[in-house]
Amino acid sequence: MVFGNLGKGCGTGVAFTRNPSNGENSFFGEWLPNAQGEDVVAGIRTPQKISGPQKGSLQKEMPKAYKDLEKIRKKLEKHFKEMQDIEFTIENDKLWMLQTRTGKRSGAAAIKIATDMVAERLIKKDEAIRRIEPSQVYESILKNIVEEDLKKAVLLGKGLPAGPGAATGQVVFCAEKAEELGKKGKDVILVRRETSPEDIHGMRYASGILTERGGLTSHAALVARGWGKSCVVGFYGLKIAENNKSAFFGKKRIKEGEWVTLNGADGSIFEKKLELFQQPIKDFEPLRLLLSWADRYRKLHVRTNADTPEDCVQALQFGAQGVGLCRTEHMFFNEKRILQFRKMILAGKREARLKHLRGLLPYQRKDFYKILNTMDGLPVTVRLLDPPFHEFLDIGEKEVASLAKTLKETKKEIIRRIDQLQEVNPMLGRRGCRLGISYPEITEMQVEAILGAALELKKEKKNPRVEIMVPLVGSLEEFLHQKNIIINTYEKLSKKHKQKLSYKIGTMIEIPKACFSAGIIAKNADFFSFGTNDLTQTTFGFSRDDVGSFFPGYLEKGILTFDPFESIDEKGVGALMDIAIKNGKKNNPTLSLGVCGEHGGDPKSINFCNEIGLHYVSCSPFRVPVARLAAAQAVL
Amino acid sequence: MVFGNLGKGCGTGVAFTRNPSNGENSFFGEWLPNAQGEDVVAGIRTPQKISGPQKGSLQKEMPKAYKDLEKIRKKLEKHFKEMQDIEFTIENDKLWMLQTRTGKRSGAAAIKIATDMVAERLIKKDEAIRRIEPSQVYESILKNIVEEDLKKAVLLGKGLPAGPGAATGQVVFCAEKAEELGKKGKDVILVRRETSPEDIHGMRYASGILTERGGLTSHAALVARGWGKSCVVGFYGLKIAENNKSAFFGKKRIKEGEWVTLNGADGSIFEKKLELFQQPIKDFEPLRLLLSWADRYRKLHVRTNADTPEDCVQALQFGAQGVGLCRTEHMFFNEKRILQFRKMILAGKREARLKHLRGLLPYQRKDFYKILNTMDGLPVTVRLLDPPFHEFLDIGEKEVASLAKTLKETKKEIIRRIDQLQEVNPMLGRRGCRLGISYPEITEMQVEAILGAALELKKEKKNPRVEIMVPLVGSLEEFLHQKNIIINTYEKLSKKHKQKLSYKIGTMIEIPKACFSAGIIAKNADFFSFGTNDLTQTTFGFSRDDVGSFFPGYLEKGILTFDPFESIDEKGVGALMDIAIKNGKKNNPTLSLGVCGEHGGDPKSINFCNEIGLHYVSCSPFRVPVARLAAAQAVL
Repeated sequence: MVFGNLGKGCGTGVAFTRNPSNGENSFFGEWLPNAQGEDVVAGIRTPQKISGPQKGSLQKEMPKAYKDLEKIRKKLEKHFKEMQDIEFTIENDKLWMLQTRTGKRSGAAAIKIATDMVAERLIKKDEAIRRIEPSQVYESILKNIVEEDLKKAVLLGKGLPAGPGAATGQVVFCAEKAEELGKKGKDVILVRRETSPEDIHGMRYASGILTERGGLTSHAALVARGWGKSCVVGFYGLKIAENNKSAFFGKKRIKEGEWVTLNGADGSIFEKKLELFQQPIKDFEPLRLLLSWADRYRKLHVRTNADTPEDCVQALQFGAQGVGLCRTEHMFFNEKRILQFRKMILAGKREARLKHLRGLLPYQRKDFYKILNTMDGLPVTVRLLDPPFHEFLDIGEKEVASLAKTLKETKKEIIRRIDQLQEVNPMLGRRGCRLGISYPEITEMQVEAILGAALELKKEKKNPRVEIMVPLVGSLEEFLHQKNIIINTYEKLSKKHKQKLSYKIGTMIEIPKACFSAGIIAKNADFFSFGTNDLTQTTFGFSRDDVGSFFPGYLEKGILTFDPFESIDEKGVGALMDIAIKNGKKNNPTLSLGVCGEHGGDPKSINFCNEIGLHYVSCSPFRVPVARLAAAQAVL
Repeated sequence: MVFGNLGKGCGTGVAFTRNPSNGENSFFGEWLPNAQGEDVVAGIRTPQKISGPQKGSLQKEMPKAYKDLEKIRKKLEKHFKEMQDIEFTIENDKLWMLQTRTGKRSGAAAIKIATDMVAERLIKKDEAIRRIEPSQVYESILKNIVEEDLKKAVLLGKGLPAGPGAATGQVVFCAEKAEELGKKGKDVILVRRETSPEDIHGMRYASGILTERGGLTSHAALVARGWGKSCVVGFYGLKIAENNKSAFFGKKRIKEGEWVTLNGADGSIFEKKLELFQQPIKDFEPLRLLLSWADRYRKLHVRTNADTPEDCVQALQFGAQGVGLCRTEHMFFNEKRILQFRKMILAGKREARLKHLRGLLPYQRKDFYKILNTMDGLPVTVRLLDPPFHEFLDIGEKEVASLAKTLKETKKEIIRRIDQLQEVNPMLGRRGCRLGISYPEITEMQVEAILGAALELKKEKKNPRVEIMVPLVGSLEEFLHQKNIIINTYEKLSKKHKQKLSYKIGTMIEIPKACFSAGIIAKNADFFSFGTNDLTQTTFGFSRDDVGSFFPGYLEKGILTFDPFESIDEKGVGALMDIAIKNGKKNNPTLSLGVCGEHGGDPKSINFCNEIGLHYVSCSPFRVPVARLAAAQAVL
C-alpha cells in the first residue's frame, strides 16, 4: 500500500463511511499529513482524526479536501448502499480516491447502519433483515474485551467456546464460594473440573464459568448459554489442586482470588483483569426496530426455554412469545428442596414418598404461579420431571449421614439405595416419563402444582395458558398413562377450586421410536415439541457428555463437516422429524409443532424448522432475538 | 371324571398314543383294574402300565381289550394325524373310549413324532416343519430338571430367565474360583453381583451363572445364551457378603461350596443339587432330519455369532453356514493379553502404543487362523474392535501399581489416565469405529491379523472367506476412513505374502443415523449387518443395562406388550431397517444383508427378517437349529 506524495498540501488516509464500532453516521478514519499510505497503517507516526474541529484534523487542516471527501462518501454510499471502507490520498490539495470496499463492522454497528439506511431510504426493510447475520445480533447484546486490552493480554490457554461473550473475575473453585462472593457483588469466575446441577446456585452468581471437562453441550455449556453467561469448557490444560485453593492453568499456577478473563467467543483464557464493554441492550433502539420488522415477515413463533421467573422476564424483554420449555427439575436444586427431594427418592415405601412429595408441592406451586403470572396470556410449556434420580444424589458422607438420620435408616442402607439408582447409561435409563410411570405420584404432585397455580391465577382473572409436556415418550401407551393422570388430577382440582381451565397436553419427541409412533400419539396429543438434543444423541449414538474424546478429531479429519448438536442434522435427525410431522399432521391437523432443543436458537436449524412446517422454536432467552431474525430470514 | 364300573373284567385308564417324553411310537399310559377314572388320576392306588408282558399290564390281563385299544390308537392317529391323549374304560371286557384330544409332549418328543409321522406317511414334510414350535427345538437340546426332583425342590427365589436350560453346581463367588474348580471337572454355579468381560474365563467353566443385577440383555445373559449356558440374572434377593464367601439367597444364607440348582427356563433358583437330564444332541436323528427338510424350504442363510474356534465347532455341529459376527475384543480377555492391551490403551505416545499393538498381533493372528481354518469355505464376518477402552480397565490397586511400573509412570498418573477414559454414557461414547478413527493403528493391527491369517491359509490351499466389518458407522466418511486403512493394509500384506485374496468390507448398521446414510454407504460397501441390539437401544432410548428398573412395570402395566430386545420392534426398529434396506439395495443391488443381533435367533424376528428381504441371520450357536426351523416356517 504505497500511495500518495509527500509535501505540503499532501496526505493520505483510510476511513469508514460510518462508525464500524457503533454504526453512527459520521466519518470514522485517520490521516497523516505529508505521508504515504503505508505510514498510516504501519503506525510509526500517530495519525490524526479526519473529522472534528480540533487542530490536526483533515476537516481543520484541509477543509476543501475534506468537503470533497464528504461528498464522495455520500456518493459512494448511495451507489453501493453499504458502508464503505475507503483509502484516499491528497496531492497538492486535490483529493484522489484509491480504493473502496464494503467495510467490516461490529454486530451493533451492522444493526444501526442497516436500520439507518432504511430511514435514509437507501435500502428496503427486507434488505436490512437479510443483511444482518444472526450472529451479529447475538454479538450486539454481549460483553466483549476492549480491543486495546486484548492486544496486550497474556493467554493462559484455550478451551471450547461454550457460553457467549467475555467475563472477567476472581477465580473460585467451588459453587459455595462463588455464591458467597457473587452475592456481595464481586465478579467471580467459577472454575470446576465439570459442573453438575448442584453447582447451579454458584453458577448463577458467577460472571463466567470455566471447566476442565465437557463439550459444547455439557451441563456447564447448556446452563451458561441459557443465561447468556460467558463460559469456556473442555480446557484440558486445567488441573485443580485437591484442596480447591489453586489450579494450574497450563503451566501457570493461579490461586483463589486472582483475576482471569474469559472470552466465550473463541474459548481463550487470559491472565488478569481485562476491560470489558457492552452495548446497552434495552436502549438499543436499532435492534428493537430491526426485530419489529423481522416479526412482520416470520411465520415461526419464537418462545424461550426458561425455568425461573427471572429467565421469563429476561426473555420477554427479548421478545419471547411464550415459554417452550420449562424444566421443572431445576426448581429442586435449592438447599431446602433438594433435601426433601432426596428423602422422597430414597423413601422405602409409597406412603413415605407421598409425604415428602406433599412437602415439595407448595414450593412447586409457588414457582409455577410466578412463572405463569409473568407470562400471563402467553403459552407456557411445562415439562414433567425428566432427569434420572441419581442426578440428585451426588452427595458426600455428611449428607448421607443426615439422610440416614431423618429416614431412620443405617448409613449403609442409604448408600445401598443410592448405589442401586446408579445407571450404566443414564441417558438411556429410567428418566422422562419412565419415572412418572414408575412413580405416578410424582406426576400427580407436579400436575397439582402446575394446574393448581393456573387455577389460582384464573380466579384472579388472569389468563394462564398452560401446556403440560410428557418427556421421553416412545409409545402411545406411555403417553396415555401420563395423560390419564393429568386429566384425573385436573378433574379433582377443578372441582375443588370450582373453576374450569383449558390447558393442553402434549409430548416431547426426542427418541427415534417416538417419530414412528407419532401418528397414533398425535390423535391423542395437543402438541409435539421436538427435543432435538436428545434426538441427535440417540440418532447418532452420541452422548453429548462424551463426544469430547473424538469430536475434535472428527471435525479435523472432515468426518463431520458440522456439529450436529449445533445445527440440526437434516438428513438423519431431520428425516426423523419429517416422518413425525407428516404422520402427526395427517392424524391431527390441529397439532401444534415446535422445537425446544438447543437448536431452537441456531439460524441454520431455524431455517430448517421453517421449511418442514413447525409452528414455533424455543431457545434460551439470549437467543430469542437471534431466532426472531433468523425466522424472518428463513421466510425471505 | 367319574367313569367306568367296578368289578371283574372292568377297569379304566389314560394313555398317550405315543411316548410324550421321547416320542417313541408305543402306547404310554396307565390303568387301574376295578376302578373308576378318578382313581387313576387321584393316585390313591398305584396304576399299572398298559403295555408290556409283565403281570398287571392291560396287555397281559385283558389281551382282547388291549388289542381293541391298539386298533383304536392307530385309527385315531390316522384320523387326527396327531398323537392323542385318550381316556378309556372297560366294562365287562368291553372297551369304551371316553375322550380323545391332542396330547402334550416334550420338545424332543414333538420332533420325533413329527418326523416319524412323515415316515408313516401320516403327514407331509412341510406339515412336520409347521407343527414344531421353534422353542421345542431349543428345549430338545437343553438340560432340564428331572420332574420328580422338581416337585420336592425348595425354591430360594426367582430372577429373570436369561440363559437356557437347567444347571446344578457348587456356589462360588468369583471367576477365579469358578475356573479353578471347573478345570477340575467340578460343577460350579458362578454367583456375582453382575459380570463383566473379565469374568469370562470363570464363566466359561461354570455350569450356570447367577447375578443380582442386570436384565435379559446384560453381559451375563448375552454370554450365557451364546454358550447355551444356564443363567439367571436380576435376582434382587441376592446379597453377597463382602468377603465373597457366602451370600443371602433371599432369607437363606448359602456358603461357598454349597449346592444350588438354576432353572434358566423360568428363572427359579433351588436349594441343593437336583437331578438333570438331557436328550443326546448329536445322535438325535429326528432333529437332524427335521432340520434337513427345513433347510430345503428356507431362503435365509443361518450363520452364528462365535468368538472362538470352540464356538465355531459347536455351531457347525448345529448347521451354521458361516460366522456372522466374530467379536475380536473377547480375544483380549486373557491374562497375558489383557495386560498388553492395557499397556496399549494407557500408552502416552503413539510409538509406545504401536509397540504394545505389535505385541498383540501374533495372538490375534493365531486366533483368526484357527477360526478361519475351522470355518474353511464358509464366510466369517470379523468385527473390528468395538467396546470403549474403559471396559478393559476395571482394575484394582495391584494392577495399577504393576502398570505404573511397566509404563514407568506414577500410580497417580495411571489412575488419572484411567479416569480420563471413563464415560458418562459408554453406550454412546467412544466405541466402534470411533476408536479405529481415533487410533488408526488399532484397525491396522487387527486387519493385519485377520488378513495375515487368511493369506497364510490361502497358501495352504485352504479357502478362507473373510468379511471385515466396521462397527457403529453413522456416515460414509467414517466407513471410508476405515475402509482405506483396510485396503492399504491388504495391499502391503498381499505384496509381502506374494498372494492375492478376495475379501469383503462391510459395516454394521446399528444406529438410526446409519439407516439414513445407508444409500451412500451401500455404494461403497459389500455388506450390511444389522446390529439390532444397539439399534433397539438407540431407537427406544433404552440402555439394556438399565431397563431392569422399569421394564417389569412396563410389561406388567401393558405399556410394553413385548420385549423389544427379544423380538424386533417392527414398527420402529423394523421401519429403520426397511429404510436402510431399500436405500441400500437401490444403490448396490449385490449388497449382502444380514442381522447379527440377539434377534437373529428369535423366531418372530426371523420371520420379519425373511419378510424384509435379508439374506442371512446370525445367532449364538445354540440358537442355530432354532433359526433353521424358524427360517423355513417363515417361508411356509
